[in-house]
Amino acid sequence: MYSCQYLSDFTQKVLQKMGFSQDDAAACAKVFLAAEMRGISTHGIIRLSDYFKLWEAGRINVKPDIRMVHESPCTAVMDGDGTIGMLPAIRGMQTAIAKAQTAGTGWVSVRNSSNFGISGYYAMMALEHDMIGFACTNASPLVAPTFAAVPMLGTNPMAIAIPAGKQPPFVADFATTPITRGKFTIAAKKGEKIGFGYAQDADGKPTNDPTSIEHGGTMLPLGGDREHGSHKGYCLAAVVDILSAVLSGANFGPFVPPMMSYLPLLEQKSGEGWGHFFGAMRVDAFTPVSEFKTRMDKWIEVMRHATPAKGQERVLIPGDPERENEERIAKEGITLLPQVIADMKIIAEKLKIPLHSH
Amino acid sequence: MYSCQYLSDFTQKVLQKMGFSQDDAAACAKVFLAAEMRGISTHGIIRLSDYFKLWEAGRINVKPDIRMVHESPCTAVMDGDGTIGMLPAIRGMQTAIAKAQTAGTGWVSVRNSSNFGISGYYAMMALEHDMIGFACTNASPLVAPTFAAVPMLGTNPMAIAIPAGKQPPFVADFATTPITRGKFTIAAKKGEKIGFGYAQDADGKPTNDPTSIEHGGTMLPLGGDREHGSHKGYCLAAVVDILSAVLSGANFGPFVPPMMSYLPLLEQKSGEGWGHFFGAMRVDAFTPVSEFKTRMDKWIEVMRHATPAKGQERVLIPGDPERENEERIAKEGITLLPQVIADMKIIAEKLKIPLHSH
Repeated sequence: MYSCQYLSDFTQKVLQKMGFSQDDAAACAKVFLAAEMRGISTHGIIRLSDYFKLWEAGRINVKPDIRMVHESPCTAVMDGDGTIGMLPAIRGMQTAIAKAQTAGTGWVSVRNSSNFGISGYYAMMALEHDMIGFACTNASPLVAPTFAAVPMLGTNPMAIAIPAGKQPPFVADFATTPITRGKFTIAAKKGEKIGFGYAQDADGKPTNDPTSIEHGGTMLPLGGDREHGSHKGYCLAAVVDILSAVLSGANFGPFVPPMMSYLPLLEQKSGEGWGHFFGAMRVDAFTPVSEFKTRMDKWIEVMRHATPAKGQERVLIPGDPERENEERIAKEGITLLPQVIADMKIIAEKLKIPLHSH
Repeated sequence: MYSCQYLSDFTQKVLQKMGFSQDDAAACAKVFLAAEMRGISTHGIIRLSDYFKLWEAGRINVKPDIRMVHESPCTAVMDGDGTIGMLPAIRGMQTAIAKAQTAGTGWVSVRNSSNFGISGYYAMMALEHDMIGFACTNASPLVAPTFAAVPMLGTNPMAIAIPAGKQPPFVADFATTPITRGKFTIAAKKGEKIGFGYAQDADGKPTNDPTSIEHGGTMLPLGGDREHGSHKGYCLAAVVDILSAVLSGANFGPFVPPMMSYLPLLEQKSGEGWGHFFGAMRVDAFTPVSEFKTRMDKWIEVMRHATPAKGQERVLIPGDPERENEERIAKEGITLLPQVIADMKIIAEKLKIPLHSH
């Protein structure tokens, strides 16, 4: 069991040893730890090793010049200069918020970035400004469009954060696939099947084998198959890809470079690095904040009190599970998988950082 | 078999006899016929009878004063004055486009409206201006949030239109449920089951009975069940509802009034009428239009040429099926269901409009 503070300090030390500035390391650590605290450990400390190995392979720029490529009063395109995704993402969302402050809304497309962790972190940055926040990113290809047999899109997540009054905010944060990549890995390790509707084999036939995607298979978009609306999940992943990459000049679809240092860089590029897209809308650009919050509280209360299905205890509001995780993990501490602790030891030894056993 | 022109003329005459101005009738007819031509006949002439009956019941304002409630350089809230949804929707999207023209992007939330037909029509209005268009609407409750047993949200569709260069535009237009309400009606009439993943019974248990939603059951969000990501479909429907109704002051969730004149108006309101949300973003607020279109053409070509799954001929781009329908139906003419023709006869007799048999 680890404290948030301990893991934050460790993450910052690792990133500083890699060459990131103290401020940049602190900013990134916040995103890593937000994932752990919200119970999204698939995007937490487990990923530190991926970035570390990318750095060892010379694929991460630790002294980035994140720059404005183009801007208008409510829009911008930014270039992440090939660094760890959190830094251009934070700058991108800060820019969207700053533009919204003066223009009412702000929209920023980012290129030449990499994996930014959890989308929800950036969408939620809008909340304290009484803004609605939006964040999404493309990712390396794993998902087949409806009717395709090959990976052409990432799990391309999106997040929307909406402020409320007395109620906690509405925070939707989800991949545009039925389940995450991580669940395949866990099922495969346990020797279990994953059920149908998640993956197909190399021919594009339905499969329940979690190892299929390591053998030429692909993940399916949200909806699963055509009959259950997979073309809608494909649409969502496509829109995320286009806003993030076609608009900014990042690599799109099958050209998004891998985050795993053991995978070769692709021969063909369609742009620079990964792409993200951020949005912020001032609530009071539409309606007085107090009125909106009163209505939003009512929306949340009405949905929360909907009659549950038999066998279910309650209806959740998007953001509830993650907030409850935060409360629980703040008391209990963060549990890491043995593999993650082993990776931390390797990093600590290589970088000569002290690591306590917990 | 009917020609587009004939059905457009008929629709305009009906709407004018109901009291709509010539211009308003023509504007609405375009949306009805766009649905027919794009092969989305569930939102075409079949709906004319619903509006006619609502008008007979005194629930449609045919001389609306569609007005601006609040505006900023890139945002607005508008009030549809209780009229047929197409009129506030067109004005809403026009306003979003006009704001984008001067400010870079435009975002408009509309209240006090009703069913607006197909979302894609409005999103596509942005294309000729080299803008990315977005449109969505809430709708009367049919869908249960994940873990709920009662209808709290509509099928809440959304559309995104993105211009390309040599390629036709990308147009995604979809309900946030696996299938539309209309498919339940068709299966029920045929005495067929619908498969699982679409509906649950009054207890919230999975069912394949298409009549379930007439007996206290509910439709399921995109994803179907929790294991297949229905909470993501629920998030999408919720975001559409909040942007359309909580932002504008329309009725949200379970309070959205019915479009069927035989259903009583709800006792409780949370706002005025139905809500919509529209967005337009100038491509050149981000990147030169020609560069974007070149990249977008490449995106489309790459996806279109992805290896198909075994047994599939090709991978589609969002908008392909509807565009191919348009080409086919322009040659073949529009086929209407016998029930729709019968409804047209009733309307024609009541309003004393000539109707040719075809």
